[in-house]
Amino acid sequence: MITVVKIGGNVIDNASALSGFLDVFSKLEGPKMLVHGGGKLATRLSAQMGVKTKMVEGRRVTDKKTLDIVTMVYAGLTNKNIVAALSARGVKAVGLSGADANVIPATKRAPNPIDFGYVGDINPAEVNTDFIKTLLDADIVPVFCALTHDSHGSLLNSNADSVASAVAIATSHISATRLVFCFEKPGVLLDVEDDNSVIPIINRSKYAELRAKNLIFEGMLPKIDGAFKAIDNGVKEVIIKCADSLLCNTGTTIQE
Amino acid sequence: MITVVKIGGNVIDNASALSGFLDVFSKLEGPKMLVHGGGKLATRLSAQMGVKTKMVEGRRVTDKKTLDIVTMVYAGLTNKNIVAALSARGVKAVGLSGADANVIPATKRAPNPIDFGYVGDINPAEVNTDFIKTLLDADIVPVFCALTHDSHGSLLNSNADSVASAVAIATSHISATRLVFCFEKPGVLLDVEDDNSVIPIINRSKYAELRAKNLIFEGMLPKIDGAFKAIDNGVKEVIIKCADSLLCNTGTTIQE
Repeated sequence: MITVVKIGGNVIDNASALSGFLDVFSKLEGPKMLVHGGGKLATRLSAQMGVKTKMVEGRRVTDKKTLDIVTMVYAGLTNKNIVAALSARGVKAVGLSGADANVIPATKRAPNPIDFGYVGDINPAEVNTDFIKTLLDADIVPVFCALTHDSHGSLLNSNADSVASAVAIATSHISATRLVFCFEKPGVLLDVEDDNSVIPIINRSKYAELRAKNLIFEGMLPKIDGAFKAIDNGVKEVIIKCADSLLCNTGTTIQE
Repeated sequence: MITVVKIGGNVIDNASALSGFLDVFSKLEGPKMLVHGGGKLATRLSAQMGVKTKMVEGRRVTDKKTLDIVTMVYAGLTNKNIVAALSARGVKAVGLSGADANVIPATKRAPNPIDFGYVGDINPAEVNTDFIKTLLDADIVPVFCALTHDSHGSLLNSNADSVASAVAIATSHISATRLVFCFEKPGVLLDVEDDNSVIPIINRSKYAELRAKNLIFEGMLPKIDGAFKAIDNGVKEVIIKCADSLLCNTGTTIQE
């Protein structure tokens, strides 16, 4: 079973949380991949460089200067420091953007109705699975930042959840693959105020039931919809859990 | 024959020279690797971020903030844009620092007599040749920036010529390897003012003769000494030439 783990900006931004996560990630058995989000460093660097950060509907508008900044931060500082930290823990990690071996081609989003600039949407069928297989067969752990490639020489800024889903869907054609989304809560909660109210398993009928009763927090719906989309495309299961309990049998498992 | 090509900051800093070089590099036949220097962007970014660039004996002192900056620029912006540009030219390029698969371990230089900070010296015998072989066997073209790894989680700033020599020495144990240093002149010149005075071949006896007659420009001596050191350690030949004539049978060949 291949495991794809995605960590978000909240883990990246906290050095001690990140170190703790990398401790457990390095102990995770079997072939594995890591996908990391961006964190706040790109926004801080933009401010230092006098480049305005423009957000529309909660998403970063990526003009050329911003693309250069996220390339420096995501593919450079964040990615290579994670790789070095994993390497120090005995993991043969290799940091990748979507341009490396053209592993994650993407299509620049159309400028209408909103021009997000250098933002790319991924078609999982185009992921270079052969390259990922070459790495996994050599016991290498690919570490992806959320930059993709337009196949014509330009990097594109993509959503880290989408990168994680795309590589998991791609590797599900090689071997059974599970996708783990780590976030700040211990799983999908029945009561957002109660960390002990984790729903252990959500399958389609349970999901329909929970939705009918309005028991799922609205912000969680796109994550679960995305999880079922990954499952529809070959991923065996999707787990939503807290980063520091990666090795524990906790969290919410979403399955067929 | 494996070819390792090193390009310096003068090519990196000039978008049109870089694009032209990548055109010819993409056409170079056989297994190949690229090593790139830094260029002036790191110095410009340091200035924008209010980090003072300190040079001692012409070398950059790399404190923690400077290490972060060179990681962003060398491993992020420069490396990934080269990779994307090669990818667009049909080359399966993969960008690497020395931390990726711990491919180039290095030792942090002792702080005496001069404390250069996070600067690493490479022992070519420690290069992860198995990993490079895995990539070359899969028709992948590794693209190295001049960052290495202390094997304990910290990146180190290294000399790009040394990185190129180290990987060439390492791969010479897999297959015959030649090392090409691209710089702004067409080769080693008998008369530095005359680009048509390239010395085509320098072997040890020719080198001794040229030195005895004081016919080699002083700045070239360390490059040629380094070339003979690479040859002593297994590299078949070292070629010193101009970046845009990579495919031509020109330049100075240094051989046993």
